[in-house]
Order: sequence, then C-alpha cells, then structure tokens
Amino acid sequence: MSRLDPISGFPEWTPEGRALERHVVDSLRDTFELHGFIEIETRAVEPLERLAGDSDAAKEIYVLRRLRADADDGDSGLGLHFDLTVPFARYVEEFSGRIAFPFRRYQIQKVWRGERPQEGRFREFYQADIDVVGRESLPSHVEAEVAIVMVHALARLPIPPVTIRVNSRAVVGEFYRALGVVDVTAALRIVDKLPKIGAPAVRELLVDAGVSGDAVEGILGLATVTGTGEAVEEALVARATAIGGPSESLREAIAGLRSVVDAINTAVPGASVADLSIARGLDYYTGCVFETFLEGHEDLGSICSGGRYDSLIAGGGFPGVGMSIGISRLVSRALSAGWVNVTRASPSVVVVAVNDEDGRRASDSIAERLRARGVAVEVSPNAAKFGKQIQYAERRGIPFVWFPAADGTDGEVKDIRSGDQNPANPDEWMPPPADLKPRVERR
Amino acid sequence: MSRLDPISGFPEWTPEGRALERHVVDSLRDTFELHGFIEIETRAVEPLERLAGDSDAAKEIYVLRRLRADADDGDSGLGLHFDLTVPFARYVEEFSGRIAFPFRRYQIQKVWRGERPQEGRFREFYQADIDVVGRESLPSHVEAEVAIVMVHALARLPIPPVTIRVNSRAVVGEFYRALGVVDVTAALRIVDKLPKIGAPAVRELLVDAGVSGDAVEGILGLATVTGTGEAVEEALVARATAIGGPSESLREAIAGLRSVVDAINTAVPGASVADLSIARGLDYYTGCVFETFLEGHEDLGSICSGGRYDSLIAGGGFPGVGMSIGISRLVSRALSAGWVNVTRASPSVVVVAVNDEDGRRASDSIAERLRARGVAVEVSPNAAKFGKQIQYAERRGIPFVWFPAADGTDGEVKDIRSGDQNPANPDEWMPPPADLKPRVERR
Repeated sequence: MSRLDPISGFPEWTPEGRALERHVVDSLRDTFELHGFIEIETRAVEPLERLAGDSDAAKEIYVLRRLRADADDGDSGLGLHFDLTVPFARYVEEFSGRIAFPFRRYQIQKVWRGERPQEGRFREFYQADIDVVGRESLPSHVEAEVAIVMVHALARLPIPPVTIRVNSRAVVGEFYRALGVVDVTAALRIVDKLPKIGAPAVRELLVDAGVSGDAVEGILGLATVTGTGEAVEEALVARATAIGGPSESLREAIAGLRSVVDAINTAVPGASVADLSIARGLDYYTGCVFETFLEGHEDLGSICSGGRYDSLIAGGGFPGVGMSIGISRLVSRALSAGWVNVTRASPSVVVVAVNDEDGRRASDSIAERLRARGVAVEVSPNAAKFGKQIQYAERRGIPFVWFPAADGTDGEVKDIRSGDQNPANPDEWMPPPADLKPRVERR
Repeated sequence: MSRLDPISGFPEWTPEGRALERHVVDSLRDTFELHGFIEIETRAVEPLERLAGDSDAAKEIYVLRRLRADADDGDSGLGLHFDLTVPFARYVEEFSGRIAFPFRRYQIQKVWRGERPQEGRFREFYQADIDVVGRESLPSHVEAEVAIVMVHALARLPIPPVTIRVNSRAVVGEFYRALGVVDVTAALRIVDKLPKIGAPAVRELLVDAGVSGDAVEGILGLATVTGTGEAVEEALVARATAIGGPSESLREAIAGLRSVVDAINTAVPGASVADLSIARGLDYYTGCVFETFLEGHEDLGSICSGGRYDSLIAGGGFPGVGMSIGISRLVSRALSAGWVNVTRASPSVVVVAVNDEDGRRASDSIAERLRARGVAVEVSPNAAKFGKQIQYAERRGIPFVWFPAADGTDGEVKDIRSGDQNPANPDEWMPPPADLKPRVERR
C-alpha cells in the first residue's frame, strides 16, 4: 500500500460525490424531521463488553489502542460502534431521565466494521436510523408508521423504486411452534441463510439441528409465501389450517402482518409485500421485520432493514421499532451506475472578477453585498486577463462572472453559458432559482 | 466503569445539546458555502506512517485492531485521524488530477485524540476546517481572506465576541535570524510554550538551547508586541532598527502582517490584533499564523487556529492557507455557560390528536397534508383523553395540537400556550414563522 492508495473498504468521494452524499443525508433529515423525529448523535466508541455480544457483527469490531500507550494502558477497552442500534440502546438507558417517551429519534453517523476486504463491502459507512421507543409499552401501529416514514424517505432519494418486504416474528413463531419446532430462534437463524445458500442447504442444516422432516418442509413451505392484502392472508390461513390451526393468536398475527403491508401500500402504492422468508438473524426482533430491495439492484442486498424489538434495551422496559438505511452503499451505486448528475461541485454561483490588485477591495465589496442576500460568491484569486478569469469559473461549473466597472462601481454580470452580459446591482441581482445552488438531478 | 457511565473525553449531548451542535454546524456550512468553499469528507483512518510524524498529536493516535483478527492480521496499520489537516493534505495529493486549483474546501468531521483524560479535554470532537490550496503558487491576499471568512463564521455563532491574534512566521524568522538565532524552528517551539510556562521558564529553555543572552531578550521582547495598524508597524520597525535593521524583506513582512490585521478589522471591526507571541508549534507554517480567543473565556485556549503553509503537502507544490474551529469545545461551553436557549428539541410543531383508534387514518391524513407543505407533524401515539394528548405535546415543547372533527374532517387547531383554538384547513394552515422550526436563541 503506497501512502496515497485508497484503503480498501474506506470509500472517499470526489467533491461531486460528496455533494450527492450530502443531498441524500439532507433529504433523509428533512423527511425524518417532517415526521417529528429528534436527532441525536452518539460517541463513536462503546465499551467492548457492550459491543461484543454473540452477533456476527461482533467479530468485526475495531478495538482502539493508544499508539504510545503507557504500560498499564494497552487496550483502551473501547471499540468503534458497528451499527447505531447498540449505541442508541445504551443512550436510551443513560438518558432515560431526560427524554420523553415514546421517544422518536433519528441518527445519521458513520459506523465501522473490520470485515475482510471484498468488492462492495465497506468497512466505514454511513447509516441513517430511525426508532420509536416506548416506556413499558408501544402500540403496534408504530410498526407500520416507521416503515411508512422510510418508504417516504426512500421515495425522495434519486434511486430506483424500492420494495419493503415484511415478515412477522409472531406469525413465524406461531407456525414454527405449531410445527413442533422447539428452538424457534435457532431455526430462524438457519432460515436467514436462504438467500445465500439456497433451500437444499437450509434443509440440511435444519435436519442437522434436529428439526423433524415434516417440520422442515413446513418451514421451507412457509418461506415461499409472499403477497399482499387478502391473498396473502388467505394463503397463510390455509397453511395454518393444514397443520391443525390457526389458533386465535396466529389468526391475529396474520391479520397484523397484512395490515402493516396494506398500510405501507396505502402510503406509497406498490411499495410493500409480505415475504415469509425474511428472517433477519438478529435475536432481538419480536414483531414485524423489514428488508428493502432496490428494483434492478437486488445484488446490493437489503438497503433498509429493521423491525420491532421488545427487550433490546436492558430489562425489557423499552419496546421499540427501528429501521436503518445503509447510505454509503446507495451513494456508491448511484455514482457507479450514473443515476444522478451534480450540476456543479462549487457552491459559488458567481465569480467576481478583479480588474487589478488595487481594485480587489471593490470586488470583495461586491461579493459581500451578494452574500448578504444569500448568493454564494467567490472573488477571482488573481487579476489575470478576463479570459483567464472566465476560464476559472468555467472549470468549476460556476455560471456567472461579475465584472466590476473600472471605477469600482457595480459593473456588469455575464452568464458565461449564453454570453449574455448586463449591468447589475449587487443589492438587487439574483441568479435564476435553478442556478442559485448546486443541484442533484436524476438522470 | 459501569456499562452506562459516560466515557471521559467522549462527550454526548441531550437532544437539545445536539440541536445546538447542529445549529453551529449548519451555520458554519452556510458561511463557508456563501464564500464558495466546497465540502469534502475524508475517511476516519489514515495509514499510521502518515499520521505518526513528530508532532505532539502523534502521541495521541488511536490505532485500530480487529477484535478477532487472524494471526497474520493483528494491527491494521491504520489509525484514527487526529485532525483534518493531515487527511486533507493526502486527499489533495490523491485527488489532484480531479480537482481545480486553487481548491477552496471545507470539512466538518469528528477527530480523535487519545489524550489522558482531564477536565475540558476531549478525545472525540468535531472540527470545522477551511483551506485554500494552490498549485505551485498562492497569492498572499488569501491569508487575510481565510481569516475573514472565519471571523464572519464565528460572528454568526451564538458565542461571545472573538479576537483573532495574528503573527507572521516571516517577521519572526527575519527577527530571529537578525538576532543570530541559528535554529529558528527550535526557538519557535520553545516560545510556543509562553502561555503555559511563562517568560522565565522560556528564557531558561532558550538559554539551554544555546541561544545567546542578547538574542533571548530580543526574542522575549518581540513576543510582547501586540497592536494594530500604524502603531504595531512602527513598534516593529523600531525594534528592528535597534538591532541594525530592518532589511527590505523584514520591512515587507511587517507591512504584510499589518495589512492582514487591518483587512480583518475592516471586515469585522475590532476582531483582530497582531500578536508577536503567537508561535503555533507546528513546523509547517511559513506565513501568517492565527489563534482566536473568546472574550471572557480565554481559558478555553484558541478556538480557531491555522496559518499559511508552503510545504505541508508532499513536494511543496501545493501552498495553502487553512484555519480550523474546535466545535465541540464551543458547544460544551455554550451549554455549561447557558449562552443559548433551544426552543424545543422536537422538530414537530403540531401533534395531531387521535379521536379513537378507528380514526387514526383520518389523523394520519391530516398529518400528511401538513407535511406536504413543510410543516413537521407527529400523530398522537394513542387515543387517550385529549388532556393526555395535550400533555404529550406540552412535555415536548410542541406548541400546537390539531383536533380532527369527530366525522374525520379537518377540525380545529389549538395553540396550547394561549389556549386559542380555531377551525383550520391542513392544506392552508401555517404556524407563525417563529414556531415553524425549533430555534437556537442567544440568551
């Protein structure tokens, strides 16, 4: 690795790429805030004992050590967070006396995972999380509400349409128990591997785990069910009937799953299906679970996942529903697939030319008057020939050059795209609204 | 350390504190962009060989290690960046073919320093940097320009007035050489300790370093010079005359220092003084150096520092001027000193009440109509008695509660502060502008 090579898994963007990332972050913020979510940030580190549970992510923790640590102070006992859920759970406990419940929070920060370097896997990336957490109880309609906020948020991004695939731990749990499965969590962890290893391999693992042959077929059959509305409800009831049910509670769980999918589709038509194969390996989910796929880019995996949990936070007194978007993967794909055009990297809409260095003060003053009215401006770094100063703007995609008059008065402004040049007053002139700020356009 | 204790040096804010931090970041972004600075972000890590120079900060590097690393993969060879200057220098080299010079960039990110824990020292904090970097050359007026952007940026923050103290490496270098000092850099590093250890201790260190008695007194005398305009210029020329000068180049350097201070004071009257004691330990500065102090809060140290450099970036082909604000320290002091009031933590300006769970859909629809017009809204999580739903808004500082009519039509909106309640249409109603978003007010 030369000192200048990119580091695998730690993406960096050009200024245009960063402008797209900012656009995504700002758009998500705006949607989350319109829905009353409060922003928090947590520190980048957590005590290792809190991070290193038994989830897969724990293997990938980056531990910190001071380079020139004292003898008694080797490892700091701190690791970088690998998601925003673990720190949020700790924050809720720590700040529980100072926040009002139900607590609607969003959080957009970088997280780190020490994965083996491989194509398309990031070791540093942005996540955007929303969660609603109650104290002691949380109504079930929050499951649909959180997913709806996320479909609205995703619909505003310059990305292809998404489908949120919804499953219900309650439905799956009832089914598995009715099939005689003893360790529902262990079975779910195996089913979670379906998209990676396929049904035959999952069948084998389930048999190895001691699940009976009939139950294995029941589990795999259930995982084939997808759909919306009455159709999926009927399909599930039929399957339950075939194994001697459904019980009252399974019937309710099925109706609950359908109602979440329907509510999402009411908000954004066609955005959601029930999918009984969605398992999500994490043990803490207790209600609906969500995964989200991008049309035509399913190879990215789920770009927005989450679900309902009841005992993620110590003691179980803080039930919640949360979902998380992987921003960096979206930005990376948007850049490589050319979904967007960034009109310019520079915030400046005007370069104020400089007649000669003695006249720089006059150019600065025109710039200040424009800035006072919200127009982003820079002053030419030198008093080169006007052709050179126009080139300075051109190379940066800045559409206007302002030429102060030789006597230091206001002068004229030129649209360097059309060549139009007109006298103008910096206390009044505005660029066309489309030029005022750089824009991210869908291509 | 219990699992819930705060970790010394890793600050976290309540939602109100984070709202203030966001306000500061957004305000800085706005000022930087009005001046045509382009945002970039760099990865949080750099190769250790690039971080571990001989600066003091190198001692404080946090090295990363994968928790369950393979045998051949102990340390990753990566450390967390301790400032934004080192990564920016690397970025400029790496991306030099894809950016236009002079490059005006800003960068607002967290940095990490593994310092010993102590009062008021952070191990994780936000920095906001601006730099203008040229290719091969950079005009000297950029030194004043960068400082002026920073005084404008700081003047907009809800903090006390600041003073930017300016020194010139050129002036100091010429003086030291005229005094017969051989190793100017070494002498400067000692003078940098003045505010910490005082003149007698600095005198001793200089003598120990082999500086002659006369030269030591000359160095300490020079460090007492402060002022603006003609007065400081004359004071410096008089001192130079006393030691047989000034040379033509020292005369120019003195005039240059005065002109930077004057330019800052023209932009924001009273914001700057020349201060010949400002040394800044970092070796890479070659022109003006800046430190910024907060009136009445000098104990915070410099809150915004930087200067001109000519060979920070490999090969010396990228001269630049940069300054950096320590955001977290400002936010921390603003919170502890009570400089600001955050009107509410929640972005919501309205809570839409729910008559009964069957009517939730009607409440959701009113909320969606308000959001479509940019009004941040949340729907009551339950259909409790209206008194309880009003209390929900009250506890969050949300000023309005919307009551849908029993038949699901628009209903009425109540200002819960005044008790005023009126029929309203969610396609037309707007809150008073002062209520639309949470505000950060100076107290």
